[in-house]
Amino acid sequence: MPGVIVDVETVDLRFPTSRALDGSDAMNEAPDYSAAYVVLHTDVGLEGHGFTFTIGRGNELALAAAEAIGRRARGWPVDELAADPGGFSRHLQADSQLRWLGPAKGTIQLGLAAVVNAAWDLIGKVAGQPVWKVLADMSPRQLVDLVDWRYLRDVLTPEAAVEMLEKQVPGRGEREVALRAEGYPAYTTSAGWLGYDDDKLARLCREVVDAGWDAVKLKVGRDLAEDVRRCALAREVIGPARRLMVDANQTLGAGDAVRWAEALAPFDIWWFEEPTSPDDVLAHATIARAIAPTRVATGEHAHNAVMFKQFLAAGAMGVCQLDAARPGGVDEAVAVLLLAAAHDVPVCPHAGGVGLCELVQHLSMVDYVAISGSREDRMIEYVDHLHEHFVDPVRMRGASYLPPSRPGYSAEILPSSRAAYAFPHGSAWRAGS
Amino acid sequence: MPGVIVDVETVDLRFPTSRALDGSDAMNEAPDYSAAYVVLHTDVGLEGHGFTFTIGRGNELALAAAEAIGRRARGWPVDELAADPGGFSRHLQADSQLRWLGPAKGTIQLGLAAVVNAAWDLIGKVAGQPVWKVLADMSPRQLVDLVDWRYLRDVLTPEAAVEMLEKQVPGRGEREVALRAEGYPAYTTSAGWLGYDDDKLARLCREVVDAGWDAVKLKVGRDLAEDVRRCALAREVIGPARRLMVDANQTLGAGDAVRWAEALAPFDIWWFEEPTSPDDVLAHATIARAIAPTRVATGEHAHNAVMFKQFLAAGAMGVCQLDAARPGGVDEAVAVLLLAAAHDVPVCPHAGGVGLCELVQHLSMVDYVAISGSREDRMIEYVDHLHEHFVDPVRMRGASYLPPSRPGYSAEILPSSRAAYAFPHGSAWRAGS
Repeated sequence: MPGVIVDVETVDLRFPTSRALDGSDAMNEAPDYSAAYVVLHTDVGLEGHGFTFTIGRGNELALAAAEAIGRRARGWPVDELAADPGGFSRHLQADSQLRWLGPAKGTIQLGLAAVVNAAWDLIGKVAGQPVWKVLADMSPRQLVDLVDWRYLRDVLTPEAAVEMLEKQVPGRGEREVALRAEGYPAYTTSAGWLGYDDDKLARLCREVVDAGWDAVKLKVGRDLAEDVRRCALAREVIGPARRLMVDANQTLGAGDAVRWAEALAPFDIWWFEEPTSPDDVLAHATIARAIAPTRVATGEHAHNAVMFKQFLAAGAMGVCQLDAARPGGVDEAVAVLLLAAAHDVPVCPHAGGVGLCELVQHLSMVDYVAISGSREDRMIEYVDHLHEHFVDPVRMRGASYLPPSRPGYSAEILPSSRAAYAFPHGSAWRAGS
Repeated sequence: MPGVIVDVETVDLRFPTSRALDGSDAMNEAPDYSAAYVVLHTDVGLEGHGFTFTIGRGNELALAAAEAIGRRARGWPVDELAADPGGFSRHLQADSQLRWLGPAKGTIQLGLAAVVNAAWDLIGKVAGQPVWKVLADMSPRQLVDLVDWRYLRDVLTPEAAVEMLEKQVPGRGEREVALRAEGYPAYTTSAGWLGYDDDKLARLCREVVDAGWDAVKLKVGRDLAEDVRRCALAREVIGPARRLMVDANQTLGAGDAVRWAEALAPFDIWWFEEPTSPDDVLAHATIARAIAPTRVATGEHAHNAVMFKQFLAAGAMGVCQLDAARPGGVDEAVAVLLLAAAHDVPVCPHAGGVGLCELVQHLSMVDYVAISGSREDRMIEYVDHLHEHFVDPVRMRGASYLPPSRPGYSAEILPSSRAAYAFPHGSAWRAGS
């Protein structure tokens, strides 16, 4: 008796992270990690929780978008949602007046992601399974049917995708066992925020190594000489065997990006992340050619599958940094996983912020079990912030994510945290003002 | 004594155009043309009016974005705005928390456009000139300084742009005289909305020809056989000498778009507009190669100069349909005009809706006088809707726009119309509900 969606509740949650310069980078100097949080209420007491992520001011716009999109969810039967999640997602997007605000980008897309993610939490709860497992148990055809293929067929057809997925069916069981036993590899960004001084950077790198991490990422892009110094320091501390990645957070033009990569090359950079505008497929392709074998990593700000399709087809994306809450939620994430697998590009999802680690682990895990079938060169970003607010927080063992076991999408924030961080009247904000 | 911006007023204006199926196309079935309307108030009584355009539901999101961006305009001295409009525009965009919602796309970009357009209305009023004339009197260096070059230099440098503009300086005076005498060519979309039946289509095409138009555009993309019939009918009515264009409003995949263009080719289609996703540079490039000499026209939904840069550099855009209110307003429009001129691609701006004709005429006119220096293959879209609500409506002579002469950006809507169409409590909405 799964009932009907009867109400869409939204909550403006903001965490005052800017007070400690956690999360500072060359583009985003003082973020307040925020969730435009959605609860889908049903008439049988089940709830689906989901959110999109923003960095503070403007979270109210993402909420307003989730409300506008969410109106289209009211009355939808939960069993119909569970039987055809892709159909539900396409229905949410079928309001042509709202579509005009994107299309499929910016705030309206963030709102869509929040509602779709909440719907998948509901699907998981109805199934009594975590979302990664719900997805991993779907047939190739069911996975392919999650996707809106309208603009993708020139690069990948649903038929070719089914064929690709069929090849992974025989190994699913074995990989699920390996996943439960070993977890999924991670890397950390905690050490390398721009707001930290050299002593703190060195100390954090050392702690990271001591904690067993194999890869470290530094923020760069404000001052080249400084970045050379910081990368030299980090490489010295982590030694030659571990991976060092850098992230310019879109601050550079194509020419400067190549100059940066060349100057940092002596420190053996595995990937160069977000060198320039996230819209610029052609510039990323140029940069990728110029800086190989360093890979260009991007995707955290790519807003839909059409963008990923182009980045992949153009060879502009050597690492695919899918986000769980910027494209339109789980269904569109599956489209991206299929496109990346078809191009043999590893997906290393963007995480951090608030709750992104909780979400993306599900995406990487279904990727491993049922889509790409591989963990090679794949890692989920990990940042040790704000997990304490979640009902089902990520569980790490060393440098690996352990698969979630609770039903749903791990998206639910504790009621006490929802009360404390509600903006602007929650206790966390009143105390800090 | 031009004063300081002291307040940013926003008004939710919606026109119930869906009741008559005006503006229906394959993607946008029932639009209610709407303006997220902004008034910049100064402490000396001067006002700058501007807006962005939406098609109904969600206009409240564009307004909320304009409010969030507009907070950054408060206290800005008007003489500083007039001396460095590009600096003002970059300041509006420099809130990293708000930037996260785009970046530079979707609702936050629509809000930016509304505020920037209002600022240019103010600049025109301070100068006592229409905006096209303010721009046309700027030096090449001043025009180039309007632009944010961060992500553009790989395709066009500011130095190359200055050099290009210098070549047009000697002819400016002569072209301004021609513009004032002859106006700027236009084409009409009024005949070809999808909601109209064949009789109405034929009658409207005949009226269009009788009224002296040289070019007609039809909406297509829902049913190929029907579109073949409608294009045959339109071509028969308008005769062989006039231009016939079609607009698929993003409804097709790349393969279908080529199929459509091939089926319609017998009717001598000058351009094929928005064949597929507006984000898909690579698919547009493929289509453009396949359907030449029919040109691919796009840009109405391109959200920033980085997108235009790619479309132009990839040969994916044979006609550049710049919009006045989707990219970030006048300053970014100048960037697009420069990029298009550098690629020798004609700019035929997207207009219609409410007030877009009023705005884009300024952009085409500065393009002619000071940037591309040409009216060849260039036309401004014209739709005869809703002009009666404007203080300074477009003035047509035959199939040409006459240059506006009143100071400002022609963006101001009559106070009576602002009262009547305010949503949801204006008289137009109360009467229709």
